[in-house]
Amino acid sequence: MEINSTIESLGNCNVESPLKLSRTKGDGIFDYIEDEDRILYDSSLKNFLHCVDNNKIPLSFEKAGPKQHLYFEPAKTKIAIVTCGGLCPGLNNVIRSLVMELHYRYNVRNIIGIRYGYEGFIPKYNHPYLELNPENVSHIHTLGGTLLGSSRGMQDVSIIVDQLELMNINILFCIGGDGTLRGAQAIKEKVEKRKLKIAIAGIPKTIDNDISYIDRSFGFETAYGMAKDIIRYAHNEAIGAYNGIALIKLMGRDSGFIAANAALSVQEVNFVLIPEMDFDLYGEHGFLNVLKKRLESRKHALIVVAEGAGQHLFEDVSREKDDSGNVLHKDIGLFLKEKITTEFNALSFPYSLKYIDPSYIIRSAPANANDSKFCNQLSRNAVHAAMAGKTGFVVGYWNNQFVLLPTPLTVKERKKVDVEGELWWSVLEATGQPVSLKN
Amino acid sequence: MEINSTIESLGNCNVESPLKLSRTKGDGIFDYIEDEDRILYDSSLKNFLHCVDNNKIPLSFEKAGPKQHLYFEPAKTKIAIVTCGGLCPGLNNVIRSLVMELHYRYNVRNIIGIRYGYEGFIPKYNHPYLELNPENVSHIHTLGGTLLGSSRGMQDVSIIVDQLELMNINILFCIGGDGTLRGAQAIKEKVEKRKLKIAIAGIPKTIDNDISYIDRSFGFETAYGMAKDIIRYAHNEAIGAYNGIALIKLMGRDSGFIAANAALSVQEVNFVLIPEMDFDLYGEHGFLNVLKKRLESRKHALIVVAEGAGQHLFEDVSREKDDSGNVLHKDIGLFLKEKITTEFNALSFPYSLKYIDPSYIIRSAPANANDSKFCNQLSRNAVHAAMAGKTGFVVGYWNNQFVLLPTPLTVKERKKVDVEGELWWSVLEATGQPVSLKN
Amino acid sequence: MEINSTIESLGNCNVESPLKLSRTKGDGIFDYIEDEDRILYDSSLKNFLHCVDNNKIPLSFEKAGPKQHLYFEPAKTKIAIVTCGGLCPGLNNVIRSLVMELHYRYNVRNIIGIRYGYEGFIPKYNHPYLELNPENVSHIHTLGGTLLGSSRGMQDVSIIVDQLELMNINILFCIGGDGTLRGAQAIKEKVEKRKLKIAIAGIPKTIDNDISYIDRSFGFETAYGMAKDIIRYAHNEAIGAYNGIALIKLMGRDSGFIAANAALSVQEVNFVLIPEMDFDLYGEHGFLNVLKKRLESRKHALIVVAEGAGQHLFEDVSREKDDSGNVLHKDIGLFLKEKITTEFNALSFPYSLKYIDPSYIIRSAPANANDSKFCNQLSRNAVHAAMAGKTGFVVGYWNNQFVLLPTPLTVKERKKVDVEGELWWSVLEATGQPVSLKN
Amino acid sequence: MEINSTIESLGNCNVESPLKLSRTKGDGIFDYIEDEDRILYDSSLKNFLHCVDNNKIPLSFEKAGPKQHLYFEPAKTKIAIVTCGGLCPGLNNVIRSLVMELHYRYNVRNIIGIRYGYEGFIPKYNHPYLELNPENVSHIHTLGGTLLGSSRGMQDVSIIVDQLELMNINILFCIGGDGTLRGAQAIKEKVEKRKLKIAIAGIPKTIDNDISYIDRSFGFETAYGMAKDIIRYAHNEAIGAYNGIALIKLMGRDSGFIAANAALSVQEVNFVLIPEMDFDLYGEHGFLNVLKKRLESRKHALIVVAEGAGQHLFEDVSREKDDSGNVLHKDIGLFLKEKITTEFNALSFPYSLKYIDPSYIIRSAPANANDSKFCNQLSRNAVHAAMAGKTGFVVGYWNNQFVLLPTPLTVKERKKVDVEGELWWSVLEATGQPVSLKN
Repeated sequence: MEINSTIESLGNCNVESPLKLSRTKGDGIFDYIEDEDRILYDSSLKNFLHCVDNNKIPLSFEKAGPKQHLYFEPAKTKIAIVTCGGLCPGLNNVIRSLVMELHYRYNVRNIIGIRYGYEGFIPKYNHPYLELNPENVSHIHTLGGTLLGSSRGMQDVSIIVDQLELMNINILFCIGGDGTLRGAQAIKEKVEKRKLKIAIAGIPKTIDNDISYIDRSFGFETAYGMAKDIIRYAHNEAIGAYNGIALIKLMGRDSGFIAANAALSVQEVNFVLIPEMDFDLYGEHGFLNVLKKRLESRKHALIVVAEGAGQHLFEDVSREKDDSGNVLHKDIGLFLKEKITTEFNALSFPYSLKYIDPSYIIRSAPANANDSKFCNQLSRNAVHAAMAGKTGFVVGYWNNQFVLLPTPLTVKERKKVDVEGELWWSVLEATGQPVSLKN
Repeated sequence: MEINSTIESLGNCNVESPLKLSRTKGDGIFDYIEDEDRILYDSSLKNFLHCVDNNKIPLSFEKAGPKQHLYFEPAKTKIAIVTCGGLCPGLNNVIRSLVMELHYRYNVRNIIGIRYGYEGFIPKYNHPYLELNPENVSHIHTLGGTLLGSSRGMQDVSIIVDQLELMNINILFCIGGDGTLRGAQAIKEKVEKRKLKIAIAGIPKTIDNDISYIDRSFGFETAYGMAKDIIRYAHNEAIGAYNGIALIKLMGRDSGFIAANAALSVQEVNFVLIPEMDFDLYGEHGFLNVLKKRLESRKHALIVVAEGAGQHLFEDVSREKDDSGNVLHKDIGLFLKEKITTEFNALSFPYSLKYIDPSYIIRSAPANANDSKFCNQLSRNAVHAAMAGKTGFVVGYWNNQFVLLPTPLTVKERKKVDVEGELWWSVLEATGQPVSLKN
Repeated sequence: MEINSTIESLGNCNVESPLKLSRTKGDGIFDYIEDEDRILYDSSLKNFLHCVDNNKIPLSFEKAGPKQHLYFEPAKTKIAIVTCGGLCPGLNNVIRSLVMELHYRYNVRNIIGIRYGYEGFIPKYNHPYLELNPENVSHIHTLGGTLLGSSRGMQDVSIIVDQLELMNINILFCIGGDGTLRGAQAIKEKVEKRKLKIAIAGIPKTIDNDISYIDRSFGFETAYGMAKDIIRYAHNEAIGAYNGIALIKLMGRDSGFIAANAALSVQEVNFVLIPEMDFDLYGEHGFLNVLKKRLESRKHALIVVAEGAGQHLFEDVSREKDDSGNVLHKDIGLFLKEKITTEFNALSFPYSLKYIDPSYIIRSAPANANDSKFCNQLSRNAVHAAMAGKTGFVVGYWNNQFVLLPTPLTVKERKKVDVEGELWWSVLEATGQPVSLKN
Repeated sequence: MEINSTIESLGNCNVESPLKLSRTKGDGIFDYIEDEDRILYDSSLKNFLHCVDNNKIPLSFEKAGPKQHLYFEPAKTKIAIVTCGGLCPGLNNVIRSLVMELHYRYNVRNIIGIRYGYEGFIPKYNHPYLELNPENVSHIHTLGGTLLGSSRGMQDVSIIVDQLELMNINILFCIGGDGTLRGAQAIKEKVEKRKLKIAIAGIPKTIDNDISYIDRSFGFETAYGMAKDIIRYAHNEAIGAYNGIALIKLMGRDSGFIAANAALSVQEVNFVLIPEMDFDLYGEHGFLNVLKKRLESRKHALIVVAEGAGQHLFEDVSREKDDSGNVLHKDIGLFLKEKITTEFNALSFPYSLKYIDPSYIIRSAPANANDSKFCNQLSRNAVHAAMAGKTGFVVGYWNNQFVLLPTPLTVKERKKVDVEGELWWSVLEATGQPVSLKN
């Protein structure tokens, strides 16, 4: 399958960048990035040899960075920024760095914030715009949340583009996840159809770190860092009771990255359950029996479950529940709590179970140091690309480099934890959990 | 009503304290505390004048502190320590300081930890004891939780006293809440009946800070300190959505101290609901309508509710629910979430509600600096009193002083937030919440 | 000696408070505080009996709180706020709560912030004023520092009062330490002389918690809480080397409260040196020899020294140094570092010394939860008193109650750690440090 | 220049790994890593094309990971672990993960810890060994520091190897920096000379993150994360005074990675001075004049200086100081403090300077979440390689992969911040600092 990694452009770039960088190595000044600077998708030697043997050019991504020639003339450029979907640590850092880069480095003076996600474009909601400048964003990165507010869901693309036209917006920065980026792509296509010259830039936001072709997304590290403390304290609950069980539900609707990384950062976790794994509840090798054995030998157990784990278990459940309502349906945390309770009570097996669901506590926190730095670099790279007229792109991070990715590529499917890969195996090593919880 | 504030004693104290303190002011060495050193219950001038006018001796509590003469001979003394009930920040600090004081200052070498609360005394559970010494408690105060484990509920008092006899225990330190202290008192009475010379010392543990005649209990400040961060982040959820509501449920089964103090430490909270207040849900001045007005004017609201608040609302609910199950019964957090949802949906009033229940996250954390210091001083004072043969007492804190209280006094009824008092009024000032949410 | 604890007043109060509180117990509404509500200085039973026996009225302080009748008419009142001296956690909380209380509760609309301490009054510095309102103070309490800026030192009192007149200021809130409060008192006296009706209110700021007749000052707890972490990490340095010594210098120019409380919150500290104690460096019982013995038996030592400790040692030093310069003069931290180094090198005693001086790191941090709450209540009480025309007062905290103190009383002399008192003895118990380090 | 990236081996591997991994893709079980699995040094497309054009095999590093065949038989293997040099967040995590992996995964039961660095091998110091097992390392990762203690400097290699022989050590894990790894290499060579079969494994520890060919070293992220808070608070000092200057000295003897990353994570920093940059103090474009201009326009400045910055300035100084002593020599922090003071005083330019040197506060802290995870994975990879008989290697991280590097390669020269590279340019963007501070 051919993968298209080409970034589209609005047209020729005739404006000299105000950044005053260099094109000469060795002069002590950073060099402008050329479109030919690209980063390999696969950095293994095997892939190199394979490509050479097959006379193939390997897949690569365009390196992000400042361009010598811009498409937009800064003094005449008008920018809109919108944040969509759930909160994620770092949103305000991204907003702030976009504004600071545009204002101080590119001398762009017209920047507006769209309030409450894509809703902010839609006249019927009547959300006022917010003028953004260095003063009103100066301290927001210390706070968590988003200055602009957010909302879920897409709005009518035509109306959005009407508004972009009406306001003479030249660049729209869309900060959001999967759905937001699909929305951004729809806007980009509508813009194109109308032959407008508006650049649509995506800044990927996924606290679960599960956007494809992106090694790392902002807020993710903060998220599992906060989860770490919560799990560590939960460990106190587990060891603080005879056959104590602490069960922590973490984010991860479709992927177990937060659960896996949090468990690795704590090391005392005994079980990690993620969406990517199949497991049985019952039977000799099923989760409940393995848990019971753990308790018998060590008298406590610490369990981390990603919210999307074990969805396969709900088919039975939903059949079971057809008669009696389906209150707990799909919440794997409460489901496991109930199943453990029922099973161990039935066996008269003594235990003490504490269920912990930090939910919004994690995503509304401010970004940690590493994420703060990352947000800053990511956002500035989004500005560089958009000012150079790139459109339909998402700024990402791959092999330790900031890259530009075509938006459709990133939203095609979600990134998953490879249960045969190194991360998951590290989790198995650290937890001592069996390779399989299947009979 | 006469209040008995006299501390009982096992008998005459003939053993010179090894602490080598002084009885002379001005020699630069701390003085032993005498039984006559007492702290006034009411430190207002009005009470002074009232007592003088009525020729009354005011209520006072025995000051805690080291005694020159001990009842127990250190080399022959054997100690047991038990922790009961739910976790609370500081439990390990208390255990550690008891052990350190006994070992290093009183030269007591026989200290055992009872595992998993009062269960640890009961042979059928077969929980082994844990010998405690400076090495195995040295780092526990940094971790949270309790080294000894805990359990809820009282066990057979006779068996417990049998075990105390069997093991030749001279002093039992019971660290726990309300119920644990009642249990301690029952043990003390049984010990007395059997004419044993075993001191029963209570160290009050209530994360809700609701034990009577005690200004401050350990872990409480840590608890609302952690709640502060969670509320602050929740504020991001509230302002991050149009008509955003963040609803945080905090501990406080019978009292609103954590909720009130946490709200005061944050200052952005708009509503605090506690068990001590009566409020209506519906009607012009009812909570839902006041909340709606708040949203209309400010577009977001931050609500803190103590878990025991609004229990009066459940009578209706339970009648309502007789037909249809009572899943959410008694959980005021989920109840409010549902009521807000139902009401605002019915009114087609746009809103976005995030519900946050930090539950065990708070109580399993390690003690903060001030609580760590407090635990240390509290525990050492418990040792001083017990080594001097005091029994049936609880070590407390009143008017900035450590005091000794008769156990029955502390467990007679729970301390409550006085809705006409200064703390609650401070909350009203800081939140702008109406004095009454009643029609 | 007679102690004057009377608060002065600008005159009769004829304005009804807008707070709409009550004068009736039991109506569920907080009651206005009367001038007769007073808190005893000494809450011991012994003092009660002593006063009764001697027919004496005991010393007491006026309770702080809202007054039914105000001196100033809110709509016509103009407020100035100034912060002076070094940073202290909570300054911004105080500013914010003053503004919020004045704006929302008293409906005062003219509030200005004086920039950079008393300098801000002096025309030659040309510092602009800052209008204060709920918007521009809304987030400052999360940041640490002071929005207004600060400076050290007093300025010309006449000019300050000229400015107060010129701007029609009715109430000046002076937030600062010892010197600032003396300055406030001088302003108050000059105001009086000119027969002006300007209330001068003091909000005591001392990170060292050493203002007399005040149990607790804001920022203090945050300070030793931060010191706790630093000391705990320093413990790693001590145990991480053979005969490892970690020496931490903490704040405390004239008093050892931070050092003592920080040590109590950590528990692993082995030596605490404070200004209030006398100690020898040399000789059998001198510090260096006792330190050496500690290292010989335990292979590491953790030392906390308050910056003002050991000043008596510098007399010798300064004589010593007359010939050779006095670079290290008066810095006890570097002095001890040098003395330990010299002594142990001379003895060929192996050791590894790490010196840690957190300095500004602590005082520039934001307030913790308990201090945040405290700042809020303290500031609102300052507003209540000032609006009622009280002047020349400082708002304080005594026996768990907010009180008003005459400014001269608080600045007469600094509060000290009583080396024969309970706090210091707790430190000796926790550290195992000898009662005396004198020969 | 040819770079040797080959890892040496003790001999044939005939022992089947107890890890029970797979060699089959798609079976859901992680696959053993083969020696042929290698990671490209340069992952740019340009390098790919260059290599293809020149018919060159690009430089690559051996991928770390579990091997199917081991050199050492677990039941008979004896391990020694030593930690050397200064503290670094994560040391205890590394120790713990080595022990856990060896014990639980490889069933190795003989693990000893060498106390106080290489000193621990030398009989004359008489430091006892410490047996390591899951119990005594279970909680150490929460504490910071190193359980084993450390010391600086190399010891006699012959004696070390004598001891390894004497104790029948099969694998020595050396955790340390530059010097430690050179020492490890010397040990490896001596072992070889004596024809011993002892694997010498290096785990690189550099809080400055300046070991060559290693993208990331443990503790580095924790370090700049802690620096972030300190800088943020320092910002309060800067804005809290008129023309306030806060000057923070951070680690970075030869490289500015911590300073650069910390500044990027804060975003309010105005100047970053690092060892890799040349700058003038005086003259129009010199630091002092640029700082003065910054103050004139913005009234405050926040400066971060790496400890090794500006060493070129000391040549003058040392000449200057030959007559008058050299107290401040080589401490750039104090040097800048003095120069700013002198210059601005001479110009009668008002300012307020606060100097902050967190020193040991940072390096003695426990590892953050991301570093904890990293330490765990790094250590387990060190075990895999060593059990497979690899020797003379260092376990590293490159292009998001754990790799094995020949020790000599890593210690040849230190990694530096490229002042023409992306990191430094990001710093210039975020700070607004001029590209050059040279005249």
